Amino acid sequence: MRKLSILFIMALLPFAIFCQQITRIEPSNWWTGMKYNTVTILVYGNSIAELTPSFIYNDVELVNTEKVENKNYLFVTIKIGPNAKAGNIQINFSKNSKTVLSKSFPLLKRENGSANRPSFTPKDAIFLIVPDRFSNGDAKNDVISYMNENTVDRNDENKRHGGDIQGIINHLDYIKSLGFTQIWNTPLIENDQPLYSYHGYAATDFYKIDARFGTNEQFKLMVKEANKRGIGVIWDVVLNHCGNQYYFIKDLPLKDWIHYPDSRTRTNHLKTTITDPYATEIDKQEYTDGWFDDHMPDLNQRNPLMAKYLIQNTIWWIEYAGISGLREDTWSYSDKDFLATWSKAILDEYPNMNMTGEEMTKQVYMTSYWQKDKANSDGYQCYLPALMDFSLNDNIISSFNSSNEWFSTWRDTYQSIAQDYLFPHPDNILIFPDNHDVDRFYSRLNKNFANWKLGIAMYMTMRGIPEFLYGTEVLMTNERPGSDGQRRGDFYGGWISDTKDAKTGAGLTSEEKDAQQYFSKLLNWRKTCTAVANGKFKHYAPQKNDVYVYFRYTGNKKVMVVLNKNKETVVLDLKRYEEMIPATFKAKDIVTDEPISVDNTLEVKAKTAMILEIE
Amino acid sequence: MRKLSILFIMALLPFAIFCQQITRIEPSNWWTGMKYNTVTILVYGNSIAELTPSFIYNDVELVNTEKVENKNYLFVTIKIGPNAKAGNIQINFSKNSKTVLSKSFPLLKRENGSANRPSFTPKDAIFLIVPDRFSNGDAKNDVISYMNENTVDRNDENKRHGGDIQGIINHLDYIKSLGFTQIWNTPLIENDQPLYSYHGYAATDFYKIDARFGTNEQFKLMVKEANKRGIGVIWDVVLNHCGNQYYFIKDLPLKDWIHYPDSRTRTNHLKTTITDPYATEIDKQEYTDGWFDDHMPDLNQRNPLMAKYLIQNTIWWIEYAGISGLREDTWSYSDKDFLATWSKAILDEYPNMNMTGEEMTKQVYMTSYWQKDKANSDGYQCYLPALMDFSLNDNIISSFNSSNEWFSTWRDTYQSIAQDYLFPHPDNILIFPDNHDVDRFYSRLNKNFANWKLGIAMYMTMRGIPEFLYGTEVLMTNERPGSDGQRRGDFYGGWISDTKDAKTGAGLTSEEKDAQQYFSKLLNWRKTCTAVANGKFKHYAPQKNDVYVYFRYTGNKKVMVVLNKNKETVVLDLKRYEEMIPATFKAKDIVTDEPISVDNTLEVKAKTAMILEIE
Repeated sequence: MRKLSILFIMALLPFAIFCQQITRIEPSNWWTGMKYNTVTILVYGNSIAELTPSFIYNDVELVNTEKVENKNYLFVTIKIGPNAKAGNIQINFSKNSKTVLSKSFPLLKRENGSANRPSFTPKDAIFLIVPDRFSNGDAKNDVISYMNENTVDRNDENKRHGGDIQGIINHLDYIKSLGFTQIWNTPLIENDQPLYSYHGYAATDFYKIDARFGTNEQFKLMVKEANKRGIGVIWDVVLNHCGNQYYFIKDLPLKDWIHYPDSRTRTNHLKTTITDPYATEIDKQEYTDGWFDDHMPDLNQRNPLMAKYLIQNTIWWIEYAGISGLREDTWSYSDKDFLATWSKAILDEYPNMNMTGEEMTKQVYMTSYWQKDKANSDGYQCYLPALMDFSLNDNIISSFNSSNEWFSTWRDTYQSIAQDYLFPHPDNILIFPDNHDVDRFYSRLNKNFANWKLGIAMYMTMRGIPEFLYGTEVLMTNERPGSDGQRRGDFYGGWISDTKDAKTGAGLTSEEKDAQQYFSKLLNWRKTCTAVANGKFKHYAPQKNDVYVYFRYTGNKKVMVVLNKNKETVVLDLKRYEEMIPATFKAKDIVTDEPISVDNTLEVKAKTAMILEIE
Repeated sequence: MRKLSILFIMALLPFAIFCQQITRIEPSNWWTGMKYNTVTILVYGNSIAELTPSFIYNDVELVNTEKVENKNYLFVTIKIGPNAKAGNIQINFSKNSKTVLSKSFPLLKRENGSANRPSFTPKDAIFLIVPDRFSNGDAKNDVISYMNENTVDRNDENKRHGGDIQGIINHLDYIKSLGFTQIWNTPLIENDQPLYSYHGYAATDFYKIDARFGTNEQFKLMVKEANKRGIGVIWDVVLNHCGNQYYFIKDLPLKDWIHYPDSRTRTNHLKTTITDPYATEIDKQEYTDGWFDDHMPDLNQRNPLMAKYLIQNTIWWIEYAGISGLREDTWSYSDKDFLATWSKAILDEYPNMNMTGEEMTKQVYMTSYWQKDKANSDGYQCYLPALMDFSLNDNIISSFNSSNEWFSTWRDTYQSIAQDYLFPHPDNILIFPDNHDVDRFYSRLNKNFANWKLGIAMYMTMRGIPEFLYGTEVLMTNERPGSDGQRRGDFYGGWISDTKDAKTGAGLTSEEKDAQQYFSKLLNWRKTCTAVANGKFKHYAPQKNDVYVYFRYTGNKKVMVVLNKNKETVVLDLKRYEEMIPATFKAKDIVTDEPISVDNTLEVKAKTAMILEIE
């Protein structure tokens, strides 16, 4: 061992005298058998551009070496042929024909079935986790002394609290028991920023799990452990920006690596500029190219090197960690042509891969613009399979919290869903009572427990793919509306010192226990119900009686959902529903577990959801 | 004379003995040289179905005679060949081969250029009149004793007030002086209903001007007099419903002539059912087939006889009276396939005819569904050239009346316009501060005169075709929000007894005079300004300074509009606008008539609209 070290140091000596070294190679490896087989490797090192790379490897070709403004960067493009075998490509970097540095670039064997891996679909339900706030499974990584933010303070909602990957692993059985089949974590990659590093959206290394969450290997393990329990893991991608402490921001490869490098102009947040036929160039540019926040430089995806860097990074994580799906952040803030290229590249590699983009608007005509197969009037074609239903998210609250003397406020929900004709694939949309960017569902409902139950019943039976933020099942709230920190409150029992524990039930109020039971019961039932998982949807216009009735159905299965928002019992005349169901039928009420025999009328108790699985 | 009468009576004797007579023939005539040359004539008379019609006329053929459930109706279809000459077709009705009745059906010579008549376009501005409330030019027709509502009461906002066609004719010079080039009257056809007959939307005779407004001939004269002054007349069509006192409602030709003849089910007003992929048949049916009001039966346009009746009626009025454009009421409440057929039939006959449909929703994605050339995802194709911009109508009010600490509320207006990509022809849209169905503009602005001026400046320079309700130019208001009667208040000076007169200026407050002057100045300027009439549009995102800047431009003309909503003077840095205009330029301010020399900055006074016509 000691001998080997000495040999190693001696081998390095000739390179060291040139004072040149390679700090980073990104990606650090690739795989054989990929469709994406022309890889541009970013090589970063002091004056690296003065060196010339070369290698000899069977059926792998060095296609191009590109120097940029900053001589600390080299972009080396290799093409991996179909006959290339797994192994290490030894890339030599030479000066005046003398090898000065040498770096190994592993070519790994791709796992069987990787390309055609399954992804999340409407049969799934997604558990959304903000890792820093979920559970501290490993106290040892709470403080990483060399990092910019190297304290934890659970009393400060903007500081790190110490949650990590081990904490998630510890809760996998709990998550499974609730009925979930997918996990989406907000980003786990390194955010070595001085402030707000907990949220993960200001990356400082797209290739590395933040040490305070764990390691790349530990994340891979987490995915494996989740998979064992029938749970897939969705990777949260940020294409638009990074943190200003990223090495390539502090030492820019070239000026147009990012937008507005000097002025740091903020985005105008005007999504409408994307399709507005009258928008000026400056407004369009300020939307797409402006910085999302003043510590988040806007990446220039129109630069082909940046575009490749981002595409390769996404593919790398899918391949490396066994990812089952993607969620892409601040979707439309990126260059729209790049978004088409990126989404197509992912689908080319993984035809079943589902990915959802965060287009945070209530306007369905804007959201639907991005969905795969949408025939847009401007000819723009993106390949994003899924979106998120912020329209429903808002309208359901309006249905519960507003009043109208003329008609049922269920109309807001009904009319939100009615816009689905704007989507080419309306089933492939995330529906969610809350996420990490909106107020907690129970808070928005003013802690009306009956309305919460009605809402949860709707989310579990409505078309789309339900997603729930951790803690929604135990009525977690944010007392101050609009507070990001409070929306992302610490999960009950995520810390050893917690007296309240969602997993064990310790310290939960009876209402919280009731909620958790109701939630897991419905979600576990949903897994078994093909009419909800794969079925069609049909809804009746809510009438003055304040009841929203809809059906999920396949050829031979049918579920009738009756949501009575009224403060009184309502008796439905089944004649109205004859298009979908005979006036006399037998069913099981999934909420009460009671069999029910319907004969021309249906009595629905005040403030109650009936989910009738028809026999 | 006397001899002739005796002869006439004698000639009728053989028919009279059968106690059969023809009460109505609709249409009462047709024209030679029409593309629409296969006309179905509704013949109404006691037991008319017992008779057989026939005629001999060169190149006119009797194609079909259709009997229906009710024997008081016969539908006689004739085809007018290309060689048919003008004249009277004598249609004989016989029983057992004996002519029992005879009716003359005139074939008139079509006017030259009728098919290719010009219509309204963005170069026009439309003056909207509610005739009963505009001006009483002929007191003799105020009360028509044989009609159901045979009183006038100006103190009751729901009763007839006595306005008429002569009143409009008397104001044509005034309307012209304001700068208008089109008039749209709410319907003038007979509404012989017991209540609310003033508004005209419950027809009892689609072929007859209401006697309290005048006669068919007088309306034709009004159109001619308007045309002389360069003003076209837009006809208000109602396809969806009629009044319950219509003869064919009281004596239905067949049961499915109207919808819900027995239950009189009301419409659910749920426009979303038209495109909702999940809507039930019963909800779709209740929207389209339900009655708009309980005294307005819903016409069944899926019945081919009804469809022809309505299409012919529209063409008849265009041809008869010299109509320059159409406005269609309660647009989407009619059968959508019929709407496509109707709009196509009109365009086939009059290729330049502009028509706008009332789709009363703020949702542009819904409005744009109907526009000609829209590529809808469900494949539906309508031929309606123009719509109405209810989105802008609402958003401009929100821009003026709401506040936001983060950004300019001009955004509401800006983002409303930004949706234009959803329209295939965004220029061909009516824009309007008010109409007969929304609250008066000045009232909605809480009588803020500075905001009124800003708003009027916007409507006169914005893309689209501006329409203004009578009296908007003199700040007419409705004190009670939502009151239809007050929105349609009596025009100042429309009645001889009025002390206040918009036409002469008598009794107007100084603010009202100022408003009228400002209004007519801008509108008359608009007529001359090709950049507004035919130009493109480009707008800048409103920034925190609360100024909305946009341009209208052609190849060689440019107008810069600067709307400063601020309570303070704002100085614009012209650098921001370099895409549209150099930082240094000369212009004329259309509002002040002053020349202006811009040098890098532009000072805009508080609460002021600048309309800069660039030299």
